[in-house]
Amino acid sequence: MGEFDLIARYFQRDGQVPGVDVGIGDDCAVLTPGTGTQWLVSSDMLVEGRHFLSTVEPARLGHKALAVNLSDLAACGATPRAFTLALALPRVDERFLAGFAQGMFALADAHGIALVGGDTTQGPLNICITVFGEVPNGQAILRSGARPGDDLYVSGTTLGDARLALEVFRGTLSLPGEQFDSVRRAMELPQPRVALGLALRGIATSAIDVSDGLAGDLGHILRRSGVGATLDADALPKSAVLAAQPVEVRREMGLAGGDDYELVFTAPASAREAVQRAAEASATTVTRIGRIEAEPGLRLVDAGGQALPLRLQSFDHFKTP
Amino acid sequence: MGEFDLIARYFQRDGQVPGVDVGIGDDCAVLTPGTGTQWLVSSDMLVEGRHFLSTVEPARLGHKALAVNLSDLAACGATPRAFTLALALPRVDERFLAGFAQGMFALADAHGIALVGGDTTQGPLNICITVFGEVPNGQAILRSGARPGDDLYVSGTTLGDARLALEVFRGTLSLPGEQFDSVRRAMELPQPRVALGLALRGIATSAIDVSDGLAGDLGHILRRSGVGATLDADALPKSAVLAAQPVEVRREMGLAGGDDYELVFTAPASAREAVQRAAEASATTVTRIGRIEAEPGLRLVDAGGQALPLRLQSFDHFKTP
Repeated sequence: MGEFDLIARYFQRDGQVPGVDVGIGDDCAVLTPGTGTQWLVSSDMLVEGRHFLSTVEPARLGHKALAVNLSDLAACGATPRAFTLALALPRVDERFLAGFAQGMFALADAHGIALVGGDTTQGPLNICITVFGEVPNGQAILRSGARPGDDLYVSGTTLGDARLALEVFRGTLSLPGEQFDSVRRAMELPQPRVALGLALRGIATSAIDVSDGLAGDLGHILRRSGVGATLDADALPKSAVLAAQPVEVRREMGLAGGDDYELVFTAPASAREAVQRAAEASATTVTRIGRIEAEPGLRLVDAGGQALPLRLQSFDHFKTP
Repeated sequence: MGEFDLIARYFQRDGQVPGVDVGIGDDCAVLTPGTGTQWLVSSDMLVEGRHFLSTVEPARLGHKALAVNLSDLAACGATPRAFTLALALPRVDERFLAGFAQGMFALADAHGIALVGGDTTQGPLNICITVFGEVPNGQAILRSGARPGDDLYVSGTTLGDARLALEVFRGTLSLPGEQFDSVRRAMELPQPRVALGLALRGIATSAIDVSDGLAGDLGHILRRSGVGATLDADALPKSAVLAAQPVEVRREMGLAGGDDYELVFTAPASAREAVQRAAEASATTVTRIGRIEAEPGLRLVDAGGQALPLRLQSFDHFKTP
């Protein structure tokens, strides 16, 4: 099967999506923005062994490749509109392609977005997705808007679960079968918090999605906003699996696990009710975990308010953990 | 050097570009479209051994990675606005990164566009660039607009040169040093025909950029437009290097060379003067090489009008040539 047959069989679909005037099949896709909107763009590249293991089901990989990109749109409060896919494959593997496309399109359909273009080539497995989203002018939630006195929140209860699964694969941790299935789902099928991001528009002062670990990614908000924070390490939401781990593991995984795709965000203390309504409207739990302060840097405390040492390192793609 | 230092050192630059509200450093880039415009998007992935050789100078690779994407915008008559870069690197190689960034930004600056985001990760060398361009509503030049009676044109005089260089690298052809330098430049430093594409807006009825070979890429126009064409194989513009080759090599390289990044386009016969003015305005030569006809399929003829056998194959990334 050649390149064009492959695209036609697995990636080209009929049907019009609003705002997409020309999709796959021309030199470029042609998109029409709404009136008074800005376009948001994000691009993520997934490499075997770094972002996924060779053991992953193709459908889960297709889901995850799109999910991690949608998570960036979610962090900005954007409505997803379209995406491109560039794919390098060692060979044409029909089982892989069928599964990958199924998982990717299931998530795309859930968000009403279209694959509008891209590229396929032969090479070491590599998946590069670029997503496009839209916000009304000036309403994107940025990393730079946190202010002293703001509350600090995190979404969901999966923080640290993906890292638990990774440690099982690495052989440094062992979990009963059901617990492993649960954390493996968190690692392989992350749910981008798009609905929460949309609901937080006009409420959150800043946000970021957690891909390299909560403490490290929060650091980006603090630096871009020129503020600091105190974070209660024991207030982090935990899955039942993580809650069953020793306290040191709980803190380490929650604060520096990585691959979480929850949203960390800030909002004024006066907006606590609005945050709760946004959480309910998007059927996503949110947990208050700390406070933004004028003093730069991140300070960790335990449930009793005692300072904890900060010796966590977030995931860096050019360092081997 | 970690991921964020690498981005800061080589890819993050100061200065505002119109339409770019937020660039590198947030979850997404934020772009503001002009009034009454559509957005064009294209994505290309470059893999070592497929799209470039390990011997290429990093600066030339940086140029080419962006050039092949700008070429897609050129084919649609779009004004380039911004791009994202996702890069997988086996290791942090500062000489490579400095050269790559220099070549890429030199071309970006020539077109007044900004790098607005992307991703860096460790993995087998892979470069994925996504470009964004803009056209006034409804003015994108598509592959689907060719009509019987239209003239068929190609830009420039480099058709086949990149393939000549590749054959020298493969050892199937030998060229004197100066000739090799010239075709190697065509292969490694293609010039995207952005100015010509813009000048052809409202004149050309269809266009495509030649990446897989003229005959094959013209086939996309013919199928999308529901038409056929007769093409004079001996009318193809040739560089001095290609002109010095035997007639069979000239035809083969010109028709099915690949990696050319010239524009093939169609325009009504009544627009011949307008096409010449567009060529002059963009300082790009254009050559009339055939005619669009109602009968489907591509017919090759020689300078005397005699039919030539059509046994050319365009480049397919999942077949080894």
